Amino acid sequence: MKGSMRAAVAQRSGEPLVIERRPIPAPGPGEVLVKIHASGICHTDLHAMDGDWPIKPALPFIPGHEGTGVVAELGFGVSQLQVGDAVGIAWLHDACGHCEYCITGWETLCERQHNSGYGVDGTFAEYTIANAAYVVRLPHDCDFFALAPILCAGVTSYKGIRETEVRAGEWIAISGIGGLGHLAIQYAHAMGLRVAAIDVSDAKLELARSLGAEIVVNANDGRALEDIRLGTGGGAHGVLVTAVSPAAFAQALGMVRRKGTVCLVGLPPGDFPTPIFEVVLKRITLRGSIVGNRQDLSEAMAMAANGKVRAMTEPYSLDQINAALDRLRRGEVEGRAVLDMTLLA
Amino acid sequence: MKGSMRAAVAQRSGEPLVIERRPIPAPGPGEVLVKIHASGICHTDLHAMDGDWPIKPALPFIPGHEGTGVVAELGFGVSQLQVGDAVGIAWLHDACGHCEYCITGWETLCERQHNSGYGVDGTFAEYTIANAAYVVRLPHDCDFFALAPILCAGVTSYKGIRETEVRAGEWIAISGIGGLGHLAIQYAHAMGLRVAAIDVSDAKLELARSLGAEIVVNANDGRALEDIRLGTGGGAHGVLVTAVSPAAFAQALGMVRRKGTVCLVGLPPGDFPTPIFEVVLKRITLRGSIVGNRQDLSEAMAMAANGKVRAMTEPYSLDQINAALDRLRRGEVEGRAVLDMTLLA
Amino acid sequence: MKGSMRAAVAQRSGEPLVIERRPIPAPGPGEVLVKIHASGICHTDLHAMDGDWPIKPALPFIPGHEGTGVVAELGFGVSQLQVGDAVGIAWLHDACGHCEYCITGWETLCERQHNSGYGVDGTFAEYTIANAAYVVRLPHDCDFFALAPILCAGVTSYKGIRETEVRAGEWIAISGIGGLGHLAIQYAHAMGLRVAAIDVSDAKLELARSLGAEIVVNANDGRALEDIRLGTGGGAHGVLVTAVSPAAFAQALGMVRRKGTVCLVGLPPGDFPTPIFEVVLKRITLRGSIVGNRQDLSEAMAMAANGKVRAMTEPYSLDQINAALDRLRRGEVEGRAVLDMTLLA
Amino acid sequence: MKGSMRAAVAQRSGEPLVIERRPIPAPGPGEVLVKIHASGICHTDLHAMDGDWPIKPALPFIPGHEGTGVVAELGFGVSQLQVGDAVGIAWLHDACGHCEYCITGWETLCERQHNSGYGVDGTFAEYTIANAAYVVRLPHDCDFFALAPILCAGVTSYKGIRETEVRAGEWIAISGIGGLGHLAIQYAHAMGLRVAAIDVSDAKLELARSLGAEIVVNANDGRALEDIRLGTGGGAHGVLVTAVSPAAFAQALGMVRRKGTVCLVGLPPGDFPTPIFEVVLKRITLRGSIVGNRQDLSEAMAMAANGKVRAMTEPYSLDQINAALDRLRRGEVEGRAVLDMTLLA
Repeated sequence: MKGSMRAAVAQRSGEPLVIERRPIPAPGPGEVLVKIHASGICHTDLHAMDGDWPIKPALPFIPGHEGTGVVAELGFGVSQLQVGDAVGIAWLHDACGHCEYCITGWETLCERQHNSGYGVDGTFAEYTIANAAYVVRLPHDCDFFALAPILCAGVTSYKGIRETEVRAGEWIAISGIGGLGHLAIQYAHAMGLRVAAIDVSDAKLELARSLGAEIVVNANDGRALEDIRLGTGGGAHGVLVTAVSPAAFAQALGMVRRKGTVCLVGLPPGDFPTPIFEVVLKRITLRGSIVGNRQDLSEAMAMAANGKVRAMTEPYSLDQINAALDRLRRGEVEGRAVLDMTLLA
Repeated sequence: MKGSMRAAVAQRSGEPLVIERRPIPAPGPGEVLVKIHASGICHTDLHAMDGDWPIKPALPFIPGHEGTGVVAELGFGVSQLQVGDAVGIAWLHDACGHCEYCITGWETLCERQHNSGYGVDGTFAEYTIANAAYVVRLPHDCDFFALAPILCAGVTSYKGIRETEVRAGEWIAISGIGGLGHLAIQYAHAMGLRVAAIDVSDAKLELARSLGAEIVVNANDGRALEDIRLGTGGGAHGVLVTAVSPAAFAQALGMVRRKGTVCLVGLPPGDFPTPIFEVVLKRITLRGSIVGNRQDLSEAMAMAANGKVRAMTEPYSLDQINAALDRLRRGEVEGRAVLDMTLLA
Repeated sequence: MKGSMRAAVAQRSGEPLVIERRPIPAPGPGEVLVKIHASGICHTDLHAMDGDWPIKPALPFIPGHEGTGVVAELGFGVSQLQVGDAVGIAWLHDACGHCEYCITGWETLCERQHNSGYGVDGTFAEYTIANAAYVVRLPHDCDFFALAPILCAGVTSYKGIRETEVRAGEWIAISGIGGLGHLAIQYAHAMGLRVAAIDVSDAKLELARSLGAEIVVNANDGRALEDIRLGTGGGAHGVLVTAVSPAAFAQALGMVRRKGTVCLVGLPPGDFPTPIFEVVLKRITLRGSIVGNRQDLSEAMAMAANGKVRAMTEPYSLDQINAALDRLRRGEVEGRAVLDMTLLA
Repeated sequence: MKGSMRAAVAQRSGEPLVIERRPIPAPGPGEVLVKIHASGICHTDLHAMDGDWPIKPALPFIPGHEGTGVVAELGFGVSQLQVGDAVGIAWLHDACGHCEYCITGWETLCERQHNSGYGVDGTFAEYTIANAAYVVRLPHDCDFFALAPILCAGVTSYKGIRETEVRAGEWIAISGIGGLGHLAIQYAHAMGLRVAAIDVSDAKLELARSLGAEIVVNANDGRALEDIRLGTGGGAHGVLVTAVSPAAFAQALGMVRRKGTVCLVGLPPGDFPTPIFEVVLKRITLRGSIVGNRQDLSEAMAMAANGKVRAMTEPYSLDQINAALDRLRRGEVEGRAVLDMTLLA
């Protein structure tokens, strides 16, 4: 496709994005060009822009990995998609397809993976390139804006819950009711789990209750952990920690039932102190979880498309991207900030 | 049974045991009297004697929870055992039998359990009382002395390996080649796992190699973790940490493969710092494991009885118990110190 | 407790029950006397009365194994229950507590188990004896009548679904919408599964839809299996066969997705032909499932007590027991026939 | 690569193969040309030649799917392999890479898979084409001839054992000690399982014992099943049925322990009668298993390369292919017939 597009580009580490006009990229073999309708904004975009992680993205680059849109052009050899198909673009741009992780359902651990908005240009643009085999199919008549946050915040929550191995009828505690947590409550509810929510904000706890949490406790309340232990009859079978503070990790161990699992999905720097005696005596499992594979994503997306899960969103135009990023950085976003590419500046 | 017996009794916290003469106890309903032939000596006995843990045993008490012997008398209602049957007595004296843990194969987590040599008198005596339903059956012609260490060190190692969920053909790293570790190598080998061993003593690494470890590295060697990662093609699928130092826990995270599990079986006080970024990005699982249920114990015992696993032992008479405990405290025991009740002083 | 009670007794194989007056039995050690408030009536009661199975109950006996009521008297040594506690009595009267199955969460496979209303007197009586460790606790203010069917029909459905290993968001097909099937739909729904229902009766399919089934097909319709395959996008991930006909078993294989599981919970005599080529090529799993352990029962009961699952019931007085059994035999019962012991004749 | 090659071609269904001279094929994008050193001969080759299965291969075609050799030429875009690399070619020529099965470790169930020697030309030739992402890597200095049978017979056995979910120390019964069974015994042994073997030939039982089976029984002996039940203390935890007779399937149910799994890996036509009552009451699992994914194959191959498993082989030159197929058809092959492409006629 000829012509140019607008994109929000990271030119220098630690600086705001710059809206540029660029040529529309051409899809190579096995790739598709996707016209972006909406794109969620994630903490990982901030980490990418700031160069926070050991391996940094090459500058300049276009962030964004929660994109929804329609296929605009097919690269050579693409047969599983048609122009006009609705698709989602997630963190996993592609993976090698033949390592031990790719073969066994753990492509998210592939050491040769590429990531949207990090190693390859992402979704903060009018168009982007995706690997045809790695997009997720969306229903034709879907709400592109509402589904965008599912591509990272949604699947991360969904997979994190699955990784606690909690079963229907059992208790999960969700720590942190923000962009991930408010989706996690809904996923947990849709999976038949009973939910306890913990946060430092009473307003967010109110939200948690409205989304289906049966127990809500304020982490600043000295009785918080005791309330969860009592309310759940001995502790939650699983704890999903979406809050990104070492304090939240330590609290998680105080909420979890014997034989329970604490799952971590945030990526804050630093360590948290793990008490050996308690972990051994109670046979506690601590587990990290990172996004989800394409099947996890399809499942998370299906629940959202079926109306079981709905992200709270704040809409922004592409020109407002830096304002949105600033609000995210200050922890002011309600639910998820999402670029609506149909909005004018 | 009338008469008296000799027993090693903890009279005051933090002091040596005292050899006393006591009446032979009488088994109550559902219990049996067991004549002890041998009894392993465990770090937990030191913790019990020293009152190291939050809930302390009531004084005076007889420690010991790795006892083998024969049934000498049946309490009321016992039908599944006969006088003369060979049995083993482990840490789990009994459990409630009807809580969520007992019902689902996790009796080791029962909150109403009693423990041999802690809440009830243990096996550092010529006779002790056991719950008929909670002993493990031994072959009639077994080597009581050689099998004693399996009752705690053996099953703890065996279950810890199982809890890493490593499969035959995959790599397990065993950290610490002492009383537990030297058994863990043998169990891992019998389960078809490939073994990497790590310790600070070259002599113990030599032992590890002779027991089947394919890779051995000295933890003090700066290339130790790199050697394990290279030798295993990316890290061990599981790591069993039997060493009781926070340093060993931290090293374990440097040895484990993506998606791998680090299992902790020691009970040192204190915390160890867990690096969140790495645990999340590599989807690492950390898990505590505590002894094993009766089925785990039967399985661990069967492998020992079949000759797949053999504990290295140092024999002591009952009168030498404090000398044995001192050696254990100083880390000087090779393999496992075991009381041989057939020895004279 | 002194006095007499009324009970429905099987005196001769294949004949109607006889209402007799008998002494109220006295609980032995570890047992409790339970005053029955309600008791569901199950196909197994017919099998017991008719002596259909290889090991037949000793005559005379009192059938019934879906009893709810309150503890009326404690036997020696019972400490976990109080007089007045609300409890349920299920098929598993007790088990040995120390075999490989009891230890590992599979007490339903214990070879020394006793069964209520089969090997020991059951719940078609004003009072019966239960093992204190094997009753399930009910909420104090529960609806005894409504919860009775959960004790066998409910837990069998619940466990059978669990044994398909289907996860939230996946499809389960429920074959047969009778006493078990109408509960299975509700359990599946509460567990976040998507439900397809199949039966030969349009009325029952109507019921299925009202209980949450998204797809309903009439088994007599030539397109039934194709409709399920299309509607579920390739076949149901699991199939629960509650219908007791070999035809239903064969159909199940035509509905199940590749890698899916067909779970059988009925106990009809006879074989069903399993097509090897299809089972191998599609990696199908066929699995039998039999009631559930005490933990399964607690979980199934909790969902009912929380209002997620509600049995349809037909009430009968004890004097009407044979009429109820006749209706059951003829397949005329809607949902579950339940004795209400508070009704007069 | 220019020039011609010799190949054994199926020209007409049900007729012997014809040795033809054909042009060496050219690898397309993502493909490699492999010079074949050895190729095992499998029952599936007979089924393909005879057109036994519902979907028949298009004529003419070259059978064979147990090929070992070295990469001779790289197609466009292949970077993970070099000319000269040792590789194995198995039944799964390729799969779509993006369906629910491919993504989750079950590529063997992909509905768009192609199969070597069936849908695409196979390994009964001096050269063949493989998909670079779907070959298995072999050690550089490997024994090509000895490893060929691992590519189908080996991995099918290995995966079938895994699918029984039997753990180290538990019993597996292997039914049928032929091409698959004699490998299955060795895999089971390497995985720490205890093995019972059953066959109708005393010579094969002798072989089974020499390979590590602790119990061997002749299926024609009226006490066979009883011997297995007694010898294993209640039945084998898993049964792998490699024998392709309905009688063997029925026997498997008589050998399996409560809660055990019977795994079927053969593909005979027809049904076998499954007794519902027993399957339900004992919670038996029946499961089909079909070859294995690339990771399974790597694992099975590693055990063979490490010397834990060794196929018994009969060598044939390419010109002797029809003689070998005839012997296979008549059940006369000892272990596995393997083409050695280095042999002259």
